[in-house]
Amino acid sequence: MAEKEAMKKKRKVVLASGTFDLLHMGHVKYLEEAQKAGGENAKLIVIVARDKTAEKRKGAKPVVPEDHRRALVEALKVVDEAILGFEDFNMEKVIERISPDIIAVGHDQNSIIRQVQEVVARKGLDIEVVRIGKFGKDELSSSLKIKRKIIELYKG
Amino acid sequence: MAEKEAMKKKRKVVLASGTFDLLHMGHVKYLEEAQKAGGENAKLIVIVARDKTAEKRKGAKPVVPEDHRRALVEALKVVDEAILGFEDFNMEKVIERISPDIIAVGHDQNSIIRQVQEVVARKGLDIEVVRIGKFGKDELSSSLKIKRKIIELYKG
Repeated sequence: MAEKEAMKKKRKVVLASGTFDLLHMGHVKYLEEAQKAGGENAKLIVIVARDKTAEKRKGAKPVVPEDHRRALVEALKVVDEAILGFEDFNMEKVIERISPDIIAVGHDQNSIIRQVQEVVARKGLDIEVVRIGKFGKDELSSSLKIKRKIIELYKG
Repeated sequence: MAEKEAMKKKRKVVLASGTFDLLHMGHVKYLEEAQKAGGENAKLIVIVARDKTAEKRKGAKPVVPEDHRRALVEALKVVDEAILGFEDFNMEKVIERISPDIIAVGHDQNSIIRQVQEVVARKGLDIEVVRIGKFGKDELSSSLKIKRKIIELYKG
């Protein structure tokens, strides 16, 4: 029992985030790399952007609504927990609530990485910020490209 | 060790199948119900349709290529193993290879259920065929409806 408790305490918490509209292998690979950044036994918590936040940031509503996007992310083996973000996107509140050891930022999340670095520096937090690379040039590891392909195929 | 062996032997194998283009919660719920049909400890093996097979059956190529569709299905917690189907779609060969205890058929898989029932009856196999219900009237638990929504949103 004491051993189990010690195991639990050692487990690093990794925080990842995204919209995850039209879930694809680019998303899964980002999440797998994020989890690996915390070691084999790391706990991966994922913040899934609200519909309103995603619309504000990307200029268009996600195709799949937030509750489905969250549930689908949580259905992945690599994910321990998926949580919907705050309506007013706020990295400081997220960091306070989750207390991660590591924050994994995707290759296309420039605005998030700036916010994270600002909060970590200002509050002097002991959080490692890890940038996750892009996966190949694969045309189908991008929600935008999947949408384009669908439109090409069906516009008739 | 002997106990572990016994556990393994008792684990029922459930076979599910589909194209799983644009993975959504309707797919996940179908797979979860399929796994439950074999009891809590059941092993879920999923046959993912080849691009060519899907094109022949549905009249259009899937948006996401077969290797990505397979990997995404296998990344789900509920799935033990995802395997690409035979190029010449053949339920008899699949059943021979997997030897399932249960075959779970989706609400929209009428042609598959007929093939399965025919093979099971002709060969006198001890396989339970379970029909999985449809999940709500949710417009986003259907790949076709996701495609339609994308086209509506972006055709402008």
